[in-house]
Formats: sequence, structure tokens, C-alpha cells
Amino acid sequence: MIGRLRKLRERMVEDELEAILISQPENRRYISGFTGSVGYIVICRDQAILAVDFRYTEQANREAPDLHVVQVKGGLQEWFPPLISELGIGKLGFEATDVSFDTYRQLSEVADGGGQLQLIPTREWVEQLRAVKDEEEVNLLSKAAGLADSAIGHIASTIHAGMTEREVAWEMEKFLREEGSEEIPFHVIVASGPNSALPHAKPTERAIQCGEPIVIDFGARVGGYCSDLTRTLCLGSQDDTFRNNYDLVLGAQLTALATLEAGMSGEQADRLARTVIVQGGHGEAFGHGLGHGIGLAGHESPRLGPKSEDILDENMVFTVEPGIYLSGWGGIRIEDMVVLKHGKAEVLTKANK
Amino acid sequence: MIGRLRKLRERMVEDELEAILISQPENRRYISGFTGSVGYIVICRDQAILAVDFRYTEQANREAPDLHVVQVKGGLQEWFPPLISELGIGKLGFEATDVSFDTYRQLSEVADGGGQLQLIPTREWVEQLRAVKDEEEVNLLSKAAGLADSAIGHIASTIHAGMTEREVAWEMEKFLREEGSEEIPFHVIVASGPNSALPHAKPTERAIQCGEPIVIDFGARVGGYCSDLTRTLCLGSQDDTFRNNYDLVLGAQLTALATLEAGMSGEQADRLARTVIVQGGHGEAFGHGLGHGIGLAGHESPRLGPKSEDILDENMVFTVEPGIYLSGWGGIRIEDMVVLKHGKAEVLTKANK
Repeated sequence: MIGRLRKLRERMVEDELEAILISQPENRRYISGFTGSVGYIVICRDQAILAVDFRYTEQANREAPDLHVVQVKGGLQEWFPPLISELGIGKLGFEATDVSFDTYRQLSEVADGGGQLQLIPTREWVEQLRAVKDEEEVNLLSKAAGLADSAIGHIASTIHAGMTEREVAWEMEKFLREEGSEEIPFHVIVASGPNSALPHAKPTERAIQCGEPIVIDFGARVGGYCSDLTRTLCLGSQDDTFRNNYDLVLGAQLTALATLEAGMSGEQADRLARTVIVQGGHGEAFGHGLGHGIGLAGHESPRLGPKSEDILDENMVFTVEPGIYLSGWGGIRIEDMVVLKHGKAEVLTKANK
Repeated sequence: MIGRLRKLRERMVEDELEAILISQPENRRYISGFTGSVGYIVICRDQAILAVDFRYTEQANREAPDLHVVQVKGGLQEWFPPLISELGIGKLGFEATDVSFDTYRQLSEVADGGGQLQLIPTREWVEQLRAVKDEEEVNLLSKAAGLADSAIGHIASTIHAGMTEREVAWEMEKFLREEGSEEIPFHVIVASGPNSALPHAKPTERAIQCGEPIVIDFGARVGGYCSDLTRTLCLGSQDDTFRNNYDLVLGAQLTALATLEAGMSGEQADRLARTVIVQGGHGEAFGHGLGHGIGLAGHESPRLGPKSEDILDENMVFTVEPGIYLSGWGGIRIEDMVVLKHGKAEVLTKANK
């Protein structure tokens, strides 16, 4: 955490802030190690404070040894003013996409109540640090990816026609949890036949059948870090439509995996796969971006998609997941997680495809 | 949903607003029926609009028949200005504890960009409606309570010394899900021996033992509605300390259940139980409020606690959960869900205690 605090402080110096208030949950965990659900971090140039209520003091002390834990009582408006004046903070950054209108108003009242406090909105400071992973983070992400691999292997050997989407989804979740996953990062998606034409389908009571596409999209969580894997299965014999669509998406994915490079923008990376799908005549059916960063959150920076200016950098971890969705027929999506190493994509998920 | 829209509109008239923007997820679901994770509701005096992106259009149309579903593209700043000017809205309320600083800034830019839009922060409008349940809501809450009853019955017959807290928690969760619960509303708490002295303990690898308190706090979810139940078990023979502490908390809980009435404040209701525990010599050890409302959210209005001015009203559903926490020894908490009917508490959870 010391390195993370140092980087934030360098940014504070650049942007001439004296302190920054961190409230967004994953950012709070990333900067401090604290996993509790409520708490504020105040980072000054020479101090780093984690303010929690009595329920979390012990846990905060254990989990966040690099920060000074302060036990506070009541709302922000009660404990924040004395802290700010004790620390002598002038320009204070806050997380503009996380802080609510009402919390901002409370902070403003502190600023208006005399003293020198000045509030400066910040955006994506910690999120940008989080996008580039260190060795321990890649290790946890690999473990989460390995659990996902095992789970799809398990389901491939147990799934059969007649099981409902919900049954398959629950079987996956049970397997993940029993093999060591923490709470899974998002609901398991199992979408069969025409249902698979919706990228965000919820599992239903529909019984899966032979010969149709079955999109299974899910992840595990290890040490807070998420995985995300999609495979499209087909029970029994595959017809030409399935085969052609599957091969097109697989070709697009393999092309992107083989050719994407550090230094590309999210838009350029997206185009590697999109070009293949457009040439295959299904450009309109690839209705989402190529992928997204993954870490403490299931979706984070960088974004890979038609409008993304994010630059792909060494040690970023993200998904590569082209798909096509054909109303009435169904969909195909194939997703892996990669880490950028030596400028190229190293695939973390190893499941068959 | 029609009745809920009508009540919001009455409040709009009272407060001289021409429209209100609903963004908080449970409020959005309550007002529209829409269960998707992204969307905005704009309620005017003669229209109610649900704005969603392409992923959710079909689902929104199916789930929210009383609202006019509009498919939008891009950020708020792109689709909101034309909508506002088309509707001719002047004074627009927004949810001040939900809307972020950045979203507020985007709304302000619309307001500053000409036109007549004026932004008015609102607080707890929908939350206050949600606190009083209708018949269908009480029905769903009863079902969720019944699932919790079954789960504690199941665990009481399977739990044994040597199981870890985590194993018990997972056994509970599996049972709940397999018996029909949707995603459970919060992590199952299983806290044994000294761990039970923390009201918000996470299950650990500690093996539970005979003769010690085991606090199990959990809930189910049915049709979006949550239950919340706590029992404190003890395997093998109970010593006098356990028995005395247990009886004190049970006495406090039964007193509150028998004597609380509609019209009381949250503070008055809390005092009913607190007086018993103070008289028993453990006032300091009852470190939280007596209970909280429950519905689409696990914790909602009303609050029952030492500072709560919320008034308990007919058809409110809330928990009654006194507890004592003794560092080193452990804790006792007993929690039931009640609905206020004919002015008195009718207990929805029926598990033995």
C-alpha cells in the first residue's frame, strides 16, 4: 500500500492538492487494504488516515497497517471539521463520481464555515492506478481465472439437455463457492437458444436443448479480485449455422489475442476483432465493446470499445470478448482474461474453447 | 404502481415541483417494477417515463407497464436536455442522497443551458412511501420470513461441534437458495464463542464448540423483498452465564414485541427493550439500535434506536433485535420481523427461540 500512497501523493503535488478524500469502496480497499463497507480515507502529504466507526476499528487496524486508523462517531458533518482543521488542510480533492450531492453539501458547509478548506473534484485518480496490476494482483487474478476454468470444466461434464438455465447457473455458483471462491462478482449468466441473443440475459426456467447455443458467462473472486470467463457450448450435434457463427467469433477473438499490443488504444484493440466480424457479415450483431479491465471490480479501466481512448499498458489485465447476437436464433460470445506482458496479451484463463 | 405514482404526484403538488427524477435503484424498482440495474424515471404531473438503454428496453416494457419506456443512448447530458425541453419541465426534484456530484453537475449544465429548468434536492420521498407496506408486499415479506424460518430449522438439526463458522454459513446459504430464495440480501453471519461479541462478524475458519453462544444472522429474498432473522444457538449444555444472558435478551425482545404500538417513535420502541437490558445490568453491552425497516432493501425506514424520531405506523414492517456483546465472552442477539397490524406487532418470523 505504501507504493500506492506514494503515487497518489505524487499526483497530489502535480495537481497542487494538499489532501484527497477517498470514499469509493474499491478505491478505499485498494489504497488501504480495508475491506469494510463504510469508511473514509484522508491522505495528506505526510499522513494517511482511515476514519471508521466503532464496528470496524479492530478490523481496520488489522487490515490497514499503513494507515492511521481513527474511530469516528456520527455523520461526516460531526467528525470531519475538527479533523480538517487539525490537519490544516486547504485544497482537498474528493471523488466526484462517488460523492453524493448531499455529502458534497456537507463538505461545502465545512468549507463555508470558516477556515481555509477548498473542495476540488477529482476523477479516476485511483481508478487509473488500479488499471495497472502489480505481481500480487496478477497472482490473485490468475487464481480467480483458474477457478473459473475449473468451473466450466465441471459444468461441461455435467450439463445435459433438459436442465434449466437456472439449474445450470446454480450448479456453477455452488461449484465456484465450494472450490474456494468468495462471493461471486456477478450473477452467473446461462442463456440458451433464443435467450442467448441478449448479452445480459438472466437465467430462466427454460430447459436447454441439443443443437442450440448456450452462453455461460461468470466469474470467481479470490482475495477480492474477480475473474470473468464466457464460453458458448452446444450439446449434441452442431449445425452449420452454429459452426459458422462460432468460428467467426473464435476467429475474431484469436485475432485480437494474437495481435493486440501495449500502446494501442481501446478503440484500436476493439477494431482488431471487429474487422473480422464485419468481414464475416455480422458487424451489426457485435453490439458491445471488445472488453474491459478487471480487478477489485468486475468492470474497471481500461475499456476496449469503439470510442475508447484508454491506452493499453504493460501489466493491465482485461477481458477480450467478442460476440454476435442474432434475434430469434441466439448468440455466441467467447471471453478470456489477459494480462499485458512484454507488450503482448498473455491469456490467464485456460479453459477449452 | 399506479397508487405509488399518485402519492408521489400529490407530494409534488404540495412541494410545488413539476417533476421528479428517480435514480436510486430500490426506489426505481418500487415506483416502476423495473428490476434492471441502470435507468432513470422522470415523473411529471401527467406522464411517467422510464429511460433505459438498448439492453433493457424489452425488460422495461415487460416489467413496467404503467410507465412509458423510452430507449436512450449515451450519457445523461446527451438525452436529458431534449427530454426536459419536450416535457417543458421547470422545477425538477432529484434524489439528493443518490445523485453524485458529477451527475448533479451534468444536470446543472442542462439547467444553465437556457430553458426554465430549476433543480430542487429532495430527500426520502420514495423511502417514506416504501416504509408502509401494501398487502402484496407483506405477503412477499412473509414468504421471505418463512424461508428464513425453514433455514434455521434446517441448520438446528445439522449443526454440530467441529463445523467451522464458514461451513455453517455456506450450508445456510445453499439451503436458502435451493428452497427458492433469490440472491440473499447480506452475507450470512455465523459468529461463535468470542467472535459473537462483534455484531458484524464475518464467518471464519473457527470450529464451533459446545457450550458457547453461536449467533446466526441471515435472510432470504423473495420477489425482491428481504427477510432478516437472528437466533443464538448453544450446542450441548448451557452454563448459567449463557442462560442468564440469553434470558435477559429474550425478555427484552418479548417485552418490546408485546408492548410496542403504532404511534410510538423509534426511540420509544427502542426504550422498551433497552430498559429491560439496563435493569439486567448490561445497558452498555447493547451497542446498537433495536431494529430497522425491511423491504426491497435489507435496511430501510423506519429506524428503531435511541435517536430515532421516525413514527411507527400501521403496515410498517421492521425488525426487533436486541442484543448484548461482551468482549471475551461473546454475544446474544435475537431478531424477528414484525408487521404493525391494528396498532400492534404481528410477528412474521416463527422460528423457535
